[in-house]
Amino acid sequence: MEIFASPVSQIDRQSTQPVAIGPDVIVGAEAVVLMAGPCSVESYEQTRAVAEAIHRVGGRVLRGGAFKPRTSPDSFSGLGLEGLKILRAVADEFGLLVITEALGVEYIPLVAEYADVIQIGSRNMQHFPLLWAVGETDKPVLLKRGFMATIEEWLMAAEHIARRGNEQIILCERGIRGFDPSTRNVLDTTAIALIKQLSAYPVIGDPSHATGRADLVIPAARACVAAGADGLLVEFHPHPLEALSDAEQALPLDALPQLVDEVGRIAAAMRRRLT
Amino acid sequence: MEIFASPVSQIDRQSTQPVAIGPDVIVGAEAVVLMAGPCSVESYEQTRAVAEAIHRVGGRVLRGGAFKPRTSPDSFSGLGLEGLKILRAVADEFGLLVITEALGVEYIPLVAEYADVIQIGSRNMQHFPLLWAVGETDKPVLLKRGFMATIEEWLMAAEHIARRGNEQIILCERGIRGFDPSTRNVLDTTAIALIKQLSAYPVIGDPSHATGRADLVIPAARACVAAGADGLLVEFHPHPLEALSDAEQALPLDALPQLVDEVGRIAAAMRRRLT
Amino acid sequence: MEIFASPVSQIDRQSTQPVAIGPDVIVGAEAVVLMAGPCSVESYEQTRAVAEAIHRVGGRVLRGGAFKPRTSPDSFSGLGLEGLKILRAVADEFGLLVITEALGVEYIPLVAEYADVIQIGSRNMQHFPLLWAVGETDKPVLLKRGFMATIEEWLMAAEHIARRGNEQIILCERGIRGFDPSTRNVLDTTAIALIKQLSAYPVIGDPSHATGRADLVIPAARACVAAGADGLLVEFHPHPLEALSDAEQALPLDALPQLVDEVGRIAAAMRRRLT
Amino acid sequence: MEIFASPVSQIDRQSTQPVAIGPDVIVGAEAVVLMAGPCSVESYEQTRAVAEAIHRVGGRVLRGGAFKPRTSPDSFSGLGLEGLKILRAVADEFGLLVITEALGVEYIPLVAEYADVIQIGSRNMQHFPLLWAVGETDKPVLLKRGFMATIEEWLMAAEHIARRGNEQIILCERGIRGFDPSTRNVLDTTAIALIKQLSAYPVIGDPSHATGRADLVIPAARACVAAGADGLLVEFHPHPLEALSDAEQALPLDALPQLVDEVGRIAAAMRRRLT
Repeated sequence: MEIFASPVSQIDRQSTQPVAIGPDVIVGAEAVVLMAGPCSVESYEQTRAVAEAIHRVGGRVLRGGAFKPRTSPDSFSGLGLEGLKILRAVADEFGLLVITEALGVEYIPLVAEYADVIQIGSRNMQHFPLLWAVGETDKPVLLKRGFMATIEEWLMAAEHIARRGNEQIILCERGIRGFDPSTRNVLDTTAIALIKQLSAYPVIGDPSHATGRADLVIPAARACVAAGADGLLVEFHPHPLEALSDAEQALPLDALPQLVDEVGRIAAAMRRRLT
Repeated sequence: MEIFASPVSQIDRQSTQPVAIGPDVIVGAEAVVLMAGPCSVESYEQTRAVAEAIHRVGGRVLRGGAFKPRTSPDSFSGLGLEGLKILRAVADEFGLLVITEALGVEYIPLVAEYADVIQIGSRNMQHFPLLWAVGETDKPVLLKRGFMATIEEWLMAAEHIARRGNEQIILCERGIRGFDPSTRNVLDTTAIALIKQLSAYPVIGDPSHATGRADLVIPAARACVAAGADGLLVEFHPHPLEALSDAEQALPLDALPQLVDEVGRIAAAMRRRLT
Repeated sequence: MEIFASPVSQIDRQSTQPVAIGPDVIVGAEAVVLMAGPCSVESYEQTRAVAEAIHRVGGRVLRGGAFKPRTSPDSFSGLGLEGLKILRAVADEFGLLVITEALGVEYIPLVAEYADVIQIGSRNMQHFPLLWAVGETDKPVLLKRGFMATIEEWLMAAEHIARRGNEQIILCERGIRGFDPSTRNVLDTTAIALIKQLSAYPVIGDPSHATGRADLVIPAARACVAAGADGLLVEFHPHPLEALSDAEQALPLDALPQLVDEVGRIAAAMRRRLT
Repeated sequence: MEIFASPVSQIDRQSTQPVAIGPDVIVGAEAVVLMAGPCSVESYEQTRAVAEAIHRVGGRVLRGGAFKPRTSPDSFSGLGLEGLKILRAVADEFGLLVITEALGVEYIPLVAEYADVIQIGSRNMQHFPLLWAVGETDKPVLLKRGFMATIEEWLMAAEHIARRGNEQIILCERGIRGFDPSTRNVLDTTAIALIKQLSAYPVIGDPSHATGRADLVIPAARACVAAGADGLLVEFHPHPLEALSDAEQALPLDALPQLVDEVGRIAAAMRRRLT
């Protein structure tokens, strides 16, 4: 079948307003930005190993959870402030940016001190006091879609932030709850394309939480970028089977080059590049 | 970011058993097969216009509905036998293959006479007498996923066909029912990747029914192919606004080259090609 | 708290058109009609034991499956014609009516010969040829809601039957698919109340399929009747643990008096009675 | 049909540990407790009119929202502290208890000062810092189920509260998100029965948010009590059409006696009474 010369759809990316998260890292521009790291910061060694692997493939952003309350009160709940310090130290060593979650209003000063991007988690998408509070900071905000939120509710949540003065908002599709237990959530790939039409905020995809299965993360990441995603949030762990949280969905570090290769090809097909 | 030399994931396509639907058209092999056409066959002229456009871009398969009972008994319900005859005549004129739905056991002889592939619709995925009956034909079968079927139920439905002797089965992800009215259904892109791991049957995507919105069909088609789809089922109409069914989701014919271009690039990134 | 003298809500039942399923059994009138029996007819003895228990508590309708294709092609799939004969013989012995499913168009003559009410199963709610065919019989039809169907789609399916001339339609809420694995489905109790407002067809509830758990069947049955249900479809088995299908949700026969007691009290509170 | 002498199911209520919310109002004991009031406190007159109506039918608990951030930042968002003062003044005038929501950790001291029961809203069910903070108060807590939370997640959220020392927890089923736009949510009546088996915490139903339609509130309330609910949370407004939030689901005050009558009959059938 002949490949015609018509351009990649102008529908998809026409009006995104880029968000600069560091001096030379922009989400929503030509490059697709990879944000990678462990679900939870467990130790300096673990976090450094991931950061080094990210650096080696040319990645620029380290993600990781310091405060990790879980569905069950008995599960591992993160290293807290110590985790934030590890993230910052390791990221600085490799010239990476840090994204991590602020769990509530009272966590914002601390997170803003250590991180470059403040993440609002899926379960907090409609915790309005938190939205208002990050709206009053000057940090870029990553707003995860609630796993039960419509696209309209998600965009309205972004408005709760923007009205307080902070429009440096990056949206993140991370899977919605469905009826089929074969995956943890349902990656709503089309939502990424729809955001491109409805909103000027950049949007990225989180294939790790969306699928909950390491063996589906790379195909799901490819689909996100093909749908128009401006970035990816992916969980990696030096030893996934030993991860203290979300072990089933973390990729081992040696899958990072494969992800970069496969997703990089898709990005190129979209006339973009992966960074 | 450097593109490494590692191969496209072997996970994704390792064990698919191709299904030949015509002398030189194979689903589940290297080529990604485009199946395009109107939701309903409305007239000879309408169908011929679509077939000609498909032929012009190098497409090989014409889809179209002849028997189209709808949710409401008042809606247009298809041309019936006359529709089958139009499909066959137009397809033969342009050297295309025909895929159309058998609505019930009693429709199979007629559909098998005029079509190359028998489609089982989403609402019939667990109509077992129909599964058994197509299992006793020697025609390739396209089994659409029920819009609220789990992947296990879908694969079990395929087994109901295969046990009767017909293993020429192509699965088709067409969106699952969700809670957000902004799209007609939720395209479960990850299901395509999961089928690749769980099953030897080829799997294609239907971005038209999945999204229900013309403006999302091309991005959704790209996502399907990036997730590993072996083909696409896409609705086109010469004058979408006048379509007698599913007008909102049909693409106009001049979007066909754009689709072929954009999806073709993704297929190439997957080391495949679109036909 | 004082109980005021105002009448039970007239909203709920104002315009239901009763359907007579036997000389003296009417669904949609003052009595709430219990339809009970095994998921599958497994033997004469099993079926007779259930029928006798139903008769003993004053019940009038025996349900049971003769043709039972299942999600997996390996599961027990019913006794077929032999099952129909057992149902009829046992029902006649105790003066009961029979309700059983017609699996497809081709099964209707047989089912109509042996049964008093033809059931359309949940998975067939939009198998239109079957709807049309039962619409051309003169037998009462029980139309189960598809587990993924909206109320509008369900009422439209009923219209597909009625347009062919048969308005003896009884609707049956049997649970919709949800995201929580703790129950098999989600009993949409409110749908029963809504049907009362939107439709003149009587509506009953199926707490067995809705919950999939024997320990929830009686509370769910109470809720159905409190919401306005005109009847109940409940699975019983002499030895639930040995049932060849749906063992988890069948009640033992000694739970029948308890169900009749508890649901009977709710029916009385609704100014109705259970039969 | 004869009503047998066997007792109301012992399954349902065997191990509930009652929570006293006032000197003589206990949730989880013999009485079914009605909590009624406006969605939002809009004025002293509006709130007083509702409180007077509640008092007149023998009700004991006034609900109302003071802080009401909404999906859209443009919607009415409550009177704030002024609303709390109105609630308290009006409740004291009629000898009622007050239940109202704490929107975040920082609202707890204020809410605890004015209210008898602190409500955690559906969107905050997994806002863990808030759960921990109410767990450290000595006030009864009403924990609404997240509208897409599994029962296991809901019970785990209760554990997050209980671990901090406060076991005065009342669960509230308020509808889960579904696919059918005909009701706002799907009332998961069976969840009420399941909580009775799995947990010692009392559980109540919120038929207003569950249905989103005034015409379904009373039938849904009946179903909740028939399923075993220990109480009800119901929205009333003196002039529903003029309500500043949730106008479609508020009942007018003259529906209160009818609700008390109809639900009272169901409670009596359950060998309980409504208060």
